[in-house]
Amino acid sequence: MTRLEKSSNLREACIQEALAIIESEGVESLSLREVSRRLGVSHQSPYKHFPSRDHILAEIVRRAFESFAHFLDEQSHQGTGDELAQMGRAYVQYALTHPLQYRLMFGTPLPDPTEHPVMMASARHAFTLLRDGIARMRLARGERVSSDAVDQDALFIWAALHGLASIHQTHALHTLSLSDDVLQGALDHTLYRIGIGLGVSVDRSS
Amino acid sequence: MTRLEKSSNLREACIQEALAIIESEGVESLSLREVSRRLGVSHQSPYKHFPSRDHILAEIVRRAFESFAHFLDEQSHQGTGDELAQMGRAYVQYALTHPLQYRLMFGTPLPDPTEHPVMMASARHAFTLLRDGIARMRLARGERVSSDAVDQDALFIWAALHGLASIHQTHALHTLSLSDDVLQGALDHTLYRIGIGLGVSVDRSS
Repeated sequence: MTRLEKSSNLREACIQEALAIIESEGVESLSLREVSRRLGVSHQSPYKHFPSRDHILAEIVRRAFESFAHFLDEQSHQGTGDELAQMGRAYVQYALTHPLQYRLMFGTPLPDPTEHPVMMASARHAFTLLRDGIARMRLARGERVSSDAVDQDALFIWAALHGLASIHQTHALHTLSLSDDVLQGALDHTLYRIGIGLGVSVDRSS
Repeated sequence: MTRLEKSSNLREACIQEALAIIESEGVESLSLREVSRRLGVSHQSPYKHFPSRDHILAEIVRRAFESFAHFLDEQSHQGTGDELAQMGRAYVQYALTHPLQYRLMFGTPLPDPTEHPVMMASARHAFTLLRDGIARMRLARGERVSSDAVDQDALFIWAALHGLASIHQTHALHTLSLSDDVLQGALDHTLYRIGIGLGVSVDRSS
């Protein structure tokens, strides 16, 4: 037995090594065999902590959703600006600064959610923050809306922000010869149009 | 020389085989060597028509943008509904029914656009259809807007539609337990909110 196999840190070491494999080789290359090979431990060792490759992936995805939700929550309550607009900024900022985590959450096949309820709960948590922000905004305006109506607006906002973040990583964007003003103002303008779309006035320079 | 190598159809056969490789193995696996191996022709044969692997990919991407733009153009002038809303519906419909072409246009690294001006022109053409639709809508409302303002709104609309199409292919969506009404109404609702965001009234049931 190597020192690592005896140590209580093996679980964490497996997770870090799996993340490194995903980052360098892509999620398709992740296997518990490859994790153990890279760590220099026996093939059986990772199984003490993870019944399957999907279990280690589910833990990595869970952490991504948790860190994402934490960032959204924290940033949307900073300062005095509009909560939804702050959350929108935070969303795009997270996507651009954490491309690996973002891709794991929204761009790769997830492990079967029904088999991994803790991962699923953390994914829902991020969406709930957006839902709650919308519900609070409607309430503050004296509006009563159904749960479905909140979900519909949450999907609309998610679509626009996910689309904007994705477009920035899209090579097609750079074929369009858009002006620097248009490119640099894209997030502000999108939040501005979302605000009008929701019937909320948004300060363009906030 | 095989019959195919002598035939004038070799160029088209290379394109079709390259598309099949991309579909089954992913764009990373595309090489002219693999194209010739699958076609059973000499390694040199594809070079008669394509100086490099990127040239065949650029032709495939060009065709995707062309077919996409044609579909948008055709569908947005069908019927009597709002042109932008029709184009929005066509956009998402194309994305969901042509996932390979859609991924090639917006989800994979494109060949260097400056080296492949014809591909770049067809990418711009699709964006121009959206820009023109917005400009006509503004004009019909007696509004005067700058070229940058049209670009900004085109990016907003593109983001929301690209985001919606992408979210539908995202596994995270299925962890959220959204109602069927919300999921089935997502496109209508997004177009409705975009319409309000642009200051245009959109018939929700159109």
